[in-house]
This record gives sequence, C-alpha cells and structure tokens, in this order.
Amino acid sequence: MTAAEEAPEPPYTAVIFTSTRTGGDQGYAVMSERMDRLAAEQPGYLGIESAREGAFGITVSYWVDEEAAAAWKQVHEHTVAQQRGRTTWYAEYRVQVATVTRSYGSGDSIR
Amino acid sequence: MTAAEEAPEPPYTAVIFTSTRTGGDQGYAVMSERMDRLAAEQPGYLGIESAREGAFGITVSYWVDEEAAAAWKQVHEHTVAQQRGRTTWYAEYRVQVATVTRSYGSGDSIR
Repeated sequence: MTAAEEAPEPPYTAVIFTSTRTGGDQGYAVMSERMDRLAAEQPGYLGIESAREGAFGITVSYWVDEEAAAAWKQVHEHTVAQQRGRTTWYAEYRVQVATVTRSYGSGDSIR
Repeated sequence: MTAAEEAPEPPYTAVIFTSTRTGGDQGYAVMSERMDRLAAEQPGYLGIESAREGAFGITVSYWVDEEAAAAWKQVHEHTVAQQRGRTTWYAEYRVQVATVTRSYGSGDSIR
C-alpha cells in the first residue's frame, strides 16, 4: 500500500502505532527498515504506511484480519525489536488495533 | 490525545487520512491548523494526531463513534477544505474509517 489507491476492500485490520522517539539513532533506523521488510513477508500482510515529523511518528500496518496482526506481534525478531523499543527507542508509544469498515480516496470512481 | 497515554477506552472510531501533498503551500498550513481547531470543537471529538514526512502524511482523528466522525465530514467549513484538498493540496489521498477494538501503550500498567 505505497499508493493510497492500492487499499484493499474492507473489512480488514489496521494497527495504528504512534510513538515519540528518544534522542539519537541507537540502531533504530536499521531495525525500522528490517521490521518493514519482515512484516511484508508475513501471512495476511496488506501494507504499511509511516510518517515521522520530528520525534513523533505514526505507522499504520494493514492486515487481512486481527489474527494476522496478532501473529506478526508474536514473530520472534519482532518481539526483540518491541522490547528494545520499550527500553531504548521510544519515550512513549501506543498501539491501537482497529477494524477498517470503510475506505475511499482520490483514485476511486465513486466517492 | 497529544500524549499517547491519553487514549480513550475502546471501542471508538479512528479516521485514518493518508495523503500526498502537491508542491507549495497554497494556503495549506493555515487551513490545516484551522481544521485541527475546528475538529476539536465538534461533538464526540476525542483527539487528533498527525505526522508528515516529506510529501506523505498521516492524520488520525478519533471520535466517540462513526456518527460523530460522519458529522465532522459534513461541517460546512470542512467540506470547503475537502474540496480544496481534492483540487489543490493533495496529489492523492485516502480516508479509512475504522473501529478501534484494542489499545495499549507505554503508560499502561498492564500490557
């Protein structure tokens, strides 16, 4: 889902991850890029979108259902990254798991 | 919801707005700040979070339910901004309406 137009048909699951970074990289950039690639290899992955502005960032990952999102949370390398996030990379974070029920955009013929 | 810790108890509605900006400001910054303030005055508003990195941005607004989110979409000044967004500010955009079913974060005692 690099382009907004490629969104799947609802319903599907969105995991909204918001975070405030601590200072310095401390291995964050490499891990972040690795996690994006690893997520894309998981069953039920639909896409990922991220933006960070200063310390504050929003990443939304999209999955066919909650089970697929939950399975990604449990992938070993990802659990290690989550632990490092809590101890090192994030001053604060929140995970919100949501079911997308409607989607429309600039590429649609009907708005 | 400026801090991730202030998230409400699910279920509630999240509107995920992703967009790619065209070049130049063209009144965008003033409108964007105005819409944030106007949204905060609406019934059922819970918060808004935004990050833009280069041209790509994610804004998530939070509402008590889908009706509150739908009512905000219809507020006159907001409809004018939406129209200007389609014609001027956004090369592409997508709106995804979702129901948040679970939320946890760094400020919670139980993860």
